[in-house]
Amino acid sequence: MSSNPKSKKQIIFQEAAELFRDKGYPATSMRDLAERVGLKPSSFYSHIKSKEEILQKICFDSAEKFTIGMKEVCDTEATNKEKLQLLIRLHIKVATEDPTTATVFNDEWRHLSEPHLSNFLALRRDYESHFLKIIEAGISTQEFKQISPSLVLYTIINSLRWLHFANKPTKELSATQIENDLIQLLLQGVEKNVL
Amino acid sequence: MSSNPKSKKQIIFQEAAELFRDKGYPATSMRDLAERVGLKPSSFYSHIKSKEEILQKICFDSAEKFTIGMKEVCDTEATNKEKLQLLIRLHIKVATEDPTTATVFNDEWRHLSEPHLSNFLALRRDYESHFLKIIEAGISTQEFKQISPSLVLYTIINSLRWLHFANKPTKELSATQIENDLIQLLLQGVEKNVL
Repeated sequence: MSSNPKSKKQIIFQEAAELFRDKGYPATSMRDLAERVGLKPSSFYSHIKSKEEILQKICFDSAEKFTIGMKEVCDTEATNKEKLQLLIRLHIKVATEDPTTATVFNDEWRHLSEPHLSNFLALRRDYESHFLKIIEAGISTQEFKQISPSLVLYTIINSLRWLHFANKPTKELSATQIENDLIQLLLQGVEKNVL
Repeated sequence: MSSNPKSKKQIIFQEAAELFRDKGYPATSMRDLAERVGLKPSSFYSHIKSKEEILQKICFDSAEKFTIGMKEVCDTEATNKEKLQLLIRLHIKVATEDPTTATVFNDEWRHLSEPHLSNFLALRRDYESHFLKIIEAGISTQEFKQISPSLVLYTIINSLRWLHFANKPTKELSATQIENDLIQLLLQGVEKNVL
C-alpha cells in the first residue's frame, strides 16, 4: 500500500463523518475510526490526533461555506427577495453536495470543546444576524409580509434541514426541481401578496 | 422523605429528559441519572430498570400525541387546508407544551433498541403517510399548489422542529401569535393562489 497521507486523511474524514452520523459523536471511539479505515491504532494516530480534530474540521468547513455564501449574497445588489432565494439555494447546495458532513454539522456540533464551541456559535450567530437583516429589510421594503423576522428566519433555516437525509423520498426529484419547488413553497409564504 | 413512587418516577422522567437533551442519550449513565435526582444507585433501580425504559416512554408518549392528533384531524369533515392548519397547530402544541421531551423525541429516538426502534419508525411512517394523503388530497382539490407532496411534507414538518429550543428569541411572542404567524407563513406558501 503506498503511503499518501493527504488522500488517506480525506478518506478518514469521510468515514468518520459516516460513523458520527450513524453512532453519534460521543459513542464513536478512535478505535472504531481506525478499524473503519483498516489501520492499526498506532498508525491511525499518525494521521489524526483526536476525534475532536475531525469534528472541528467538519463543523468549521461547513460553517465556512455558509459564511462565504452569505458574504457573496450581501455583496450583490439584488433585492431582498432575490437575496432570500440565493440563501435558500445555498442551504440546499450545502445539504445535498455532501449529505453526511451536513448531518454531522447539524447534529453533532454541540460536542465541540471550548473555545471551539464558542467560536462555532459566534459564526452561527453572525450568519443568522445577516440572514435576519435581509428579512427585516425585505419587510420594510414591503417585499415580505409583516411576520416576526426571527420566526421567519428559524422556520426557513429549519425547513431546509431535512435535505441531508439521503433516505427521504426525494430521489425522484432533480436537484433543480427541488430548488425551484422549495423556493416557490417558502417564498410565496414570505412574500407580501400584491393585491 | 416520604415514599411516593409515582411522583418520584415523574421527577426522574423529567430530569432524565433534561440530561438526555444536554449530554445526549448515549453519554448519560444510570449513575448520572441517580445523582441528578439525589438517589443512591440501588434505590434508583427500584424506580427505573434501565435508561432505555425512560427513552422508550419519552419517544412513545410523544408519538402517541401525534397519532391521536392525526386521528382527530382525519375524523373531521374539514377541508384539506383546515386539516393542514390543525396539523401545524398540533406540532406547535407538542413542541411548546413540553420542550425538553420534544427535544429528546426529535434527537434521541435513533438510540432505541429493537424492536422498539422499528415500532417507533412504523408509527412515524404511519403519521407521515396520513399527512401526505392530506397534502395530496389538497393538491387534487386545487387547495394547494402543484409541488411534490413529499417535499411539502418534510419542509413543513421540519420547519416546525426548532420550536422546542427554549433559548431561541421567541420569548416576546405569545403562543397565539406564533401559531397565527406560522400558519400564515406556511399556508400561503402551500395554498394555490386564486388569480
